[in-house]
Amino acid sequence: MNMLIDGEWRTDAYRTTNEDGEFERQTTAFRDWVQDEPDARFQPEADRYHLYVCRACPWAHRTLVTRKLKGLEDVISVDYVDPYRGEDGWQFTPEKDGCTPDTVSEADYLREIYVQADPEMTGRVTVPVLWDKQEGTIVNNESEEIMRMLDTAFDDVAENDVDLYPEGYQEEVDRIIDAIYEPINNGVYRTGFADAQEAYDEAVEELFDALDHWDSVLADQRYLAGDRLTEADIAMFTTLVRFDEVYHTHFMCNHTLIREYDNLWPYLRDVYQTGNIAETVNMDHIKEHYYTTHPDVSPKRIVPKGPDPDFEADPGRDDLPGEPPADLRAEATQ
Amino acid sequence: MNMLIDGEWRTDAYRTTNEDGEFERQTTAFRDWVQDEPDARFQPEADRYHLYVCRACPWAHRTLVTRKLKGLEDVISVDYVDPYRGEDGWQFTPEKDGCTPDTVSEADYLREIYVQADPEMTGRVTVPVLWDKQEGTIVNNESEEIMRMLDTAFDDVAENDVDLYPEGYQEEVDRIIDAIYEPINNGVYRTGFADAQEAYDEAVEELFDALDHWDSVLADQRYLAGDRLTEADIAMFTTLVRFDEVYHTHFMCNHTLIREYDNLWPYLRDVYQTGNIAETVNMDHIKEHYYTTHPDVSPKRIVPKGPDPDFEADPGRDDLPGEPPADLRAEATQ
Repeated sequence: MNMLIDGEWRTDAYRTTNEDGEFERQTTAFRDWVQDEPDARFQPEADRYHLYVCRACPWAHRTLVTRKLKGLEDVISVDYVDPYRGEDGWQFTPEKDGCTPDTVSEADYLREIYVQADPEMTGRVTVPVLWDKQEGTIVNNESEEIMRMLDTAFDDVAENDVDLYPEGYQEEVDRIIDAIYEPINNGVYRTGFADAQEAYDEAVEELFDALDHWDSVLADQRYLAGDRLTEADIAMFTTLVRFDEVYHTHFMCNHTLIREYDNLWPYLRDVYQTGNIAETVNMDHIKEHYYTTHPDVSPKRIVPKGPDPDFEADPGRDDLPGEPPADLRAEATQ
Repeated sequence: MNMLIDGEWRTDAYRTTNEDGEFERQTTAFRDWVQDEPDARFQPEADRYHLYVCRACPWAHRTLVTRKLKGLEDVISVDYVDPYRGEDGWQFTPEKDGCTPDTVSEADYLREIYVQADPEMTGRVTVPVLWDKQEGTIVNNESEEIMRMLDTAFDDVAENDVDLYPEGYQEEVDRIIDAIYEPINNGVYRTGFADAQEAYDEAVEELFDALDHWDSVLADQRYLAGDRLTEADIAMFTTLVRFDEVYHTHFMCNHTLIREYDNLWPYLRDVYQTGNIAETVNMDHIKEHYYTTHPDVSPKRIVPKGPDPDFEADPGRDDLPGEPPADLRAEATQ
C-alpha cells in the first residue's frame, strides 16, 4: 500500500489486511460539505468545483453518475486519471484513450493535489476528489458524501429536475446505502483481497446472501427504495455493472453472475438505460484497472476476454411500480 | 517447473512459456503399449497393471472414466496422489481425504516411481502413470494412449461390454480427439498460463470458437461422434466438468460458462450421468489442486466458493439419436 505520510509519498507504508487476512478499508481524510446555506464556506456555485476521478473506480463512478443524472456537466468540471495505478499512485496520462490532463493544476500525479490541499497530509490518495477551484483545496474525498452534495446542494445550477434523495424516502435511502455497503460494495473487495481462506469464505457468503436478498426485493419493485430512483440505486449500480466482467473472475466472486439473477440483471439494465448513465461507463478502463493494478490477485496482468454482458437489452421492468424521473425519460429517447 | 534430470529432482529447470509468453506443454516419456497380441511384451492381464492418478487432473481423469465405464476396477488397481502439487511434485498423502498411499511401492513421491522405471529419467513427472506390477516399470504416461489401451486391450477381463472405439467410428473419434486437444483440452491451460496479452487473446478466442462449434454440433446429435458414446466424449468430458468451477475463474476463460451453453451443458450432464462416471469426479480435489498449486495464477491460494453446477439435473437429451451402452444404462438405474 502506498500513501502520503506527513506530505511525503511512501510505498508499502502498511498492510491492508489484518492478522486474520481480512481486508480493512482505510477512512478518507477530507470531509467538508458544499451546502446551500448562507454562511456555508463552500457555496454550491457553477464553475467553482472540480472532480478528479478514475473511470474504473466504483466509488468515483457514483459521483459521475450523479453529475450526469442531475445535469451538472456544464457546471462541475472533471478530469480522468489513468486506470492503471502503479507504485506512484493515480497518475494523469492525457495521451491515453479516455484520460485527461489535470486541467486545474497541471499535476502529474493525484497525490500532488492532496499535498496542495494539505502539505502535511497523511493518508491514502484516493478517488473521487471534490476540488474547490476558488479556495484551491479539497472539499471532500468520500464518495457517498460527494454523491449526496451533488444531488442535494446544486439544484439551482443543475440542468435536470431530478431528486435522488426525495422527501419521504430519505430514511430508507440512507438505510439501504448503509445496508449494501459492507456486504456488496465493499464486500467484493473483502472477498478478493482476503488473504486467508476463512476471511474469503465469510466475505463471499455475506456477498451472495446480500445479492440474493436484493434480488428478491427487486421482484416486486422497480428500484431499491421502492418506486423512485434514488442514490441507493447509484450506489448499487456502480458495483453491479463491474460484477460480471471483473469481480466474478478477478475477485473470485464466482458463485453466480449478475446476468444469472432473475431480477438483479434486468434491474441493472434498467438503471444502465436511465438517462445517459451509459456514457459514464468505460468498461475498458474498468477492466484494465483491476486486472493490471493488483498483482497480488492477478500477477500476470492479463486483461481477460470477459462475458461482455448486453446492457442494452430490454429490461422489461416497465410494469413494476415506479418510473425514471421525467427529465431522464426524455434524455433516454433522444 | 520441477522435473527429473538424469534421475535427479531439479526445481526451476526450465520455463513452460516461450519468448512470446505462450504455454508449451512438454511431451511425455513412456510410450509402450499393452496389447492383446501373442508376442506383445505387455499382455492385458488382470491384476498386473496399476494406475497412478491425481483426481484433479483432467488427463488422468480420462483413464479413471475409461476404467469405470469398462468395468476394470477389480483388475486394474489405482492410487490417488495429493491434489496439491508442491515443490517436490506429486506426493502420496494417505492421511488426506480421497488420497491413498502408494500401495505398490510405498513411495512418498511419484518421482520415485519414475526413477524406478528409469534411473536416468529426464523429464516431467506427470499423471496418469500406467504401471506394470509384473515388470516393475512404467508402461505409458500418455493419457490418450492409456485411455485407448484400457478401452481396446482389456475386453477379456472387463466387467462391462462397452466399446468406446467402435468399428465404423474410429476415424471420426481420432479426428475429434485431435481436433479438441489444442483449442479446448490444452486450450484452457494455454489461456490460463499465457504470460503475454497477445498469447492469452489468441488462446481464449480459439477456445470459445471451438466450444461454440461443438455446441452447435451437439444440437442434433447426442455424442461428439454421432449416436455412440466414445473416447472423444471422455476427452471432452474431463475438461468440461472442470470448466465452470475452475477454468472460467482460475484460467480467466471467462467469456461464457458451460452452463450457459444450450447444448454443451445438457451434454455435459448427460455424460456425467452415464453409468457411474459421477463417482470419478472429486470436485474438492479439482478445486484444491488448481487454486493452490499455481501461485503464478492464484497467488493467494484461496479456493473460491464456485458456482456448484447441478450435474444431476435432467439432461433432456433422450430424444436425440443415440443412447448409452446397455451395460451402462443398467448401472445408472441401480
